[in-house]
Amino acid sequence: MEIVTVNRHAHFNAAHRLYNPDWDDERNEAVFGKCFNPKYHGHNYEMIVSVTGPVDPETGYVLDMKWLKDLIAERVEDYLDHKNLNEEVPEFAELNPTVENIVILIWKRLKPALNPEFKLKVTLFETPRNFAEYNGS
Amino acid sequence: MEIVTVNRHAHFNAAHRLYNPDWDDERNEAVFGKCFNPKYHGHNYEMIVSVTGPVDPETGYVLDMKWLKDLIAERVEDYLDHKNLNEEVPEFAELNPTVENIVILIWKRLKPALNPEFKLKVTLFETPRNFAEYNGS
Amino acid sequence: MEIVTVNRHAHFNAAHRLYNPDWDDERNEAVFGKCFNPKYHGHNYEMIVSVTGPVDPETGYVLDMKWLKDLIAERVEDYLDHKNLNEEVPEFAELNPTVENIVILIWKRLKPALNPEFKLKVTLFETPRNFAEYNGS
Amino acid sequence: MEIVTVNRHAHFNAAHRLYNPDWDDERNEAVFGKCFNPKYHGHNYEMIVSVTGPVDPETGYVLDMKWLKDLIAERVEDYLDHKNLNEEVPEFAELNPTVENIVILIWKRLKPALNPEFKLKVTLFETPRNFAEYNGS
Amino acid sequence: MEIVTVNRHAHFNAAHRLYNPDWDDERNEAVFGKCFNPKYHGHNYEMIVSVTGPVDPETGYVLDMKWLKDLIAERVEDYLDHKNLNEEVPEFAELNPTVENIVILIWKRLKPALNPEFKLKVTLFETPRNFAEYNGS
Amino acid sequence: MEIVTVNRHAHFNAAHRLYNPDWDDERNEAVFGKCFNPKYHGHNYEMIVSVTGPVDPETGYVLDMKWLKDLIAERVEDYLDHKNLNEEVPEFAELNPTVENIVILIWKRLKPALNPEFKLKVTLFETPRNFAEYNGS
Repeated sequence: MEIVTVNRHAHFNAAHRLYNPDWDDERNEAVFGKCFNPKYHGHNYEMIVSVTGPVDPETGYVLDMKWLKDLIAERVEDYLDHKNLNEEVPEFAELNPTVENIVILIWKRLKPALNPEFKLKVTLFETPRNFAEYNGS
Repeated sequence: MEIVTVNRHAHFNAAHRLYNPDWDDERNEAVFGKCFNPKYHGHNYEMIVSVTGPVDPETGYVLDMKWLKDLIAERVEDYLDHKNLNEEVPEFAELNPTVENIVILIWKRLKPALNPEFKLKVTLFETPRNFAEYNGS
Repeated sequence: MEIVTVNRHAHFNAAHRLYNPDWDDERNEAVFGKCFNPKYHGHNYEMIVSVTGPVDPETGYVLDMKWLKDLIAERVEDYLDHKNLNEEVPEFAELNPTVENIVILIWKRLKPALNPEFKLKVTLFETPRNFAEYNGS
Repeated sequence: MEIVTVNRHAHFNAAHRLYNPDWDDERNEAVFGKCFNPKYHGHNYEMIVSVTGPVDPETGYVLDMKWLKDLIAERVEDYLDHKNLNEEVPEFAELNPTVENIVILIWKRLKPALNPEFKLKVTLFETPRNFAEYNGS
Repeated sequence: MEIVTVNRHAHFNAAHRLYNPDWDDERNEAVFGKCFNPKYHGHNYEMIVSVTGPVDPETGYVLDMKWLKDLIAERVEDYLDHKNLNEEVPEFAELNPTVENIVILIWKRLKPALNPEFKLKVTLFETPRNFAEYNGS
Repeated sequence: MEIVTVNRHAHFNAAHRLYNPDWDDERNEAVFGKCFNPKYHGHNYEMIVSVTGPVDPETGYVLDMKWLKDLIAERVEDYLDHKNLNEEVPEFAELNPTVENIVILIWKRLKPALNPEFKLKVTLFETPRNFAEYNGS
C-alpha cells in the first residue's frame, strides 16, 4: 500500500511575551529583546499539520481531511485562538511560549487522537519569515 | 512627466484587544466576540505603503525607496512593533485599535514627511485574510 | 469621517466549461480552446470582497467583518461551492461562466445586502495567474 | 559528489468528483460530502516536482530544469489539464481521484523517465489549504 | 454593458545597474548605493497586466486571455527576459532602468496593441517587497 | 529533549550567467540556452535556512533567531547581495553559479558557524518556480 503525506493549513491569533522567570530583567532583555515586553505583543500563527500513512483503498484517503480540520479546530484553535498564551494556556504558566515550545504543544495535543500507525509533523509559522517544525522525535 | 505609484512592504507584530469603554461587557462581547478578550491577543501586521508621484528624470525614481524604508521604520515600526496597542500607543488609549483605525494612524504618521505633491495610500493586513486600505480621503 | 476600504478573502471550488451555444463546435474550439471540453474542468476560485465606507466611531469598524464573512458564505459560497456552474447555477444556464461573468454575478448577489452608501468591489482569481475585478460601474 | 534536491512548480486545472461505486448514495454522501456531487466540481492543482541526485560537475546541474519542465508538460499536464478526471483519465475509471491517488499517479508517470539513481517526490496542492506528498515509498 | 478589469501574471529575469552618467561616482554611490555596482546585479521581475473594458456578450470575455498572454510574451518577455537591461535594451542606453522606468516601458510596448477603448495598468515587482504601478496618466 | 527545526527566510539579488569554459559557444548555448547570455541576467534569490537541534530548556529556543539572522547577513547576504556572481564571488571564478552550486556554497559558509550538533539545510529559490535544497549529505 502506498504511503502518502496529507497536509492541512490552519491558523490562530494570540498574544505572548518571552522571558525566563528565573532570570533578572537585564538578562531577559539581553536574550529576548523586544519579545520581553511585559505588556505583550502578538502574532498570526499559521500552521501546517502533516499526517503520513497508507492510502485506504476504499476511500482513496489517508484520512478524512474534514475530520482532521475539525480535530485541529477542537484541539488547537479553540485552545489557543485569541488567547494570551502566557496567562491563559496552562502549559505556558511556567514554560516560555517560543515558537519551538508552541509547536511541540500542538503536536502533543494532536498525536493521541490519530491512528498510532500515522506519523505526525507540525509546522508553525510565527511570522511569514520565522517558523518551526516538530515531528515527535 | 509620468506619474507612477511605488510600493514598499513592511511589517510589525503587536498585541491588542477590541472594546468600547462606554459599553457594558455583554454588548462588547456581542459586537467584538473573541477580540474582546481582556487579556489581549495579537497579530503580525503586514503593510504596503504606496506613494504616487512624478518620476524624477535625474534618478528615474519617484522617491528613494531606501529613504522610504527608513521613514517607515522610524515613524511606524519603532512606534508599533512588539507593542500592546491599547496600553502603549497613546492614540489608542481611548480609540479602538481596529485595523481601520490603525491604518488611518499609520497614514497620518507618514503623510507629513512626504512631499505634499505625492499621494499616499496605506494597506494594512491584520491577517492574510482581512485587510484595510486608507488614502486620506 | 474617514473613508476606509476593508477586504475579506473567501473561496469556493467549482467545475465549468466555456462555450457559446449559438456557435458550432469549430468556432467554440477556436475561441475557447481547452476550456470548451464538454466534460468540464474546474478551478479553486479565490476572491477578495472589498467594501468602502466611513469608519463607525462607536466600533472603529466600517462593518463587522464576521457579518461580512457570514454574508459571503450565505450569498456566494453556498451558491457556488462544489457546483457545476453551467448545470447547477441558473444564471449560467445561458450565460458563459467566464471569470468576468462570475465576478459580476458575485457582485450582484452581495450588493443589495450592503448599506447603499458603501461601495463594493469584488476580485475573483480563476487561477493564481488570471483574475478579474468588478466594482459595479 | 554533493547530493542536491531540485524542485520545479507546474499546474493543471481539472474537474472531478469523489465516490466509491461499491457504496450506496447515503454512504458516499456521508464520507465524501459535497465532493460526491454527481455533476462534478474542480480545482487548480498546483504541484512541485522534486528530484534528488548528485550535481554534475560539468554543468552544475542535477538535471536540466528545461528538460524537466518539458517532461512534466508531456507526461502530466497534457494528460490531466482541463480534463474531467473521472471520465477522461483511464486510471480513474475505477479509482477515486482523491489528491492522494492523483499524486501517486503523477509520481508513477514521471519516475520511469528519470535516471534510476534519482529520488523523486511529488507534492500536489488540491487547494492552497490541502495538499499531499508522495515519494514512492 | 459591464466594465471589468482582467489581470494576467507574467515574469522575466534580467540584470541591471542604476546610475546617472552625468554624475560622478561619489554622487552615484550616494544615491544608488549597492545598485550602482558597475558589474551589475539582477532581479526576477514579476508583473501583472490589467486591462479594463466592457465584457463582450458573445464570449463573456473582456479579451481573450490567451491572446493577452501571447502579446505579453512577444512584446515584453522576448524583449526583456534574460537580458542586461542597460546594455541590451535600447531604451535604457541613456535612461536609468529603475522599476519606475521599466514599468513605463512595458506599458508603452503593450498599449498600442490593445483596443484603444481599453484602459491598461501595469504592476511590476522588482522584488517581493518593492513594486511599481503605471496606468499611462 | 525535543528536537525541533527552526527556519529563517532571507534574500539577496545578484547577476550571473551559466557556461562551461571548457565548451565552445555552440555547446554552451545548447545546454544553457538564454542563461548563457555573456552580458548576464539576474535573480531575486530567496532562501530558507533550517537548523535542527534540541530545544534549550532555559530559553525555549533551538538557537537565537536574531543571532541566526545576523549570521546570514554577515556570511551570505554581504557576500552575495547586489553582486555579479561570476565576476565578484571567488568560488564562481571557475565554478558554474547554478542554483545547485550556490545553495552548496551558502551551506558551506554557514555550517562552520553553527554548533556541530545542529543539522543544517538550506533551500534556495532562484525564481518562485525553481528552487534547490542542500543538507550537506
